[in-house]
Amino acid sequence: MRPIVFVLIAVMALACVVTYQAPASEKAEGAAAPIFGIKIPAGYRDWKLISVAHEAGNLNDIRAILGNDKAIEAYRKGKQSFPDGTVIARLAWNYVPSAENNKVFGRDQSFVAGSAPDWYLQFMVKDSKRYATTGGWGYAQFDKDGNPADEAKHGTCFPCHVPAKDRDYVFTRYAP
Amino acid sequence: MRPIVFVLIAVMALACVVTYQAPASEKAEGAAAPIFGIKIPAGYRDWKLISVAHEAGNLNDIRAILGNDKAIEAYRKGKQSFPDGTVIARLAWNYVPSAENNKVFGRDQSFVAGSAPDWYLQFMVKDSKRYATTGGWGYAQFDKDGNPADEAKHGTCFPCHVPAKDRDYVFTRYAP
Repeated sequence: MRPIVFVLIAVMALACVVTYQAPASEKAEGAAAPIFGIKIPAGYRDWKLISVAHEAGNLNDIRAILGNDKAIEAYRKGKQSFPDGTVIARLAWNYVPSAENNKVFGRDQSFVAGSAPDWYLQFMVKDSKRYATTGGWGYAQFDKDGNPADEAKHGTCFPCHVPAKDRDYVFTRYAP
Repeated sequence: MRPIVFVLIAVMALACVVTYQAPASEKAEGAAAPIFGIKIPAGYRDWKLISVAHEAGNLNDIRAILGNDKAIEAYRKGKQSFPDGTVIARLAWNYVPSAENNKVFGRDQSFVAGSAPDWYLQFMVKDSKRYATTGGWGYAQFDKDGNPADEAKHGTCFPCHVPAKDRDYVFTRYAP
């Protein structure tokens, strides 16, 4: 059996017995994402900004990365790893030109956040025991209606984050 | 005298007698911007996200727009104008490709926040009486060291925002 398949099966088995419990201050809402059992944390849209990015290519989105207080504190202290309870939110919007802004600038240069793509919301939840087989992180993706992506999609999260192992599997750096 | 020159002179005269007073919860720090007398509001980096954007062309930055509580409340309630005390912050970073992200994606598609350009920070402060001659808004720009831009630069803020008069001179729309 290839190692990655083994990890995925182990994670799926784990999902049968555990479900992520959001702290009282962030009551989980809606359906839980497969494999990791994560619900959308209430109040995530009020979290502080970590950074911004643009993914071109097939995604073609513009995104903001927000963090709960534990995430922000760890980033600002320059910690190499994040404590349990850290939650990082990635919000993506379709990358669209702004006709009204371009009119003011007098040329086509302005790109803004448009409608929500299918991969609108993603969360990384740090729980080093519960998610021990996936680097201590659980992963979740939801569309604009709060529907989680399917199991196959969630199986791709951890393998993709492995190259960032030296930074606790987190790609985004803090923008000052 | 051209109307715009008249407005600028009026604003400059006004700047001689008034200086923006930040509320106690946001103690002003550092040097005040010319014309409008605005200092960097303490705690702005903790404010909630309004939206994100990419300006190509000469600016070539990626930016986040944050708002204090009055700004966020007005946006979320869909108000056509913002109440006095509203402050909107625009943070810009140089738009740079991410080699480490591109390696994971297997192609050049990822652009992230780099170093701070000279126009790193901008603020719009709503005070309908104090800034009556500039649509009710004061404007300020600072570099990464907290140094305000010069008077000539600040004279360009309001004329550029006039096309957005129907939306209370604010270009950015709220990203849900």
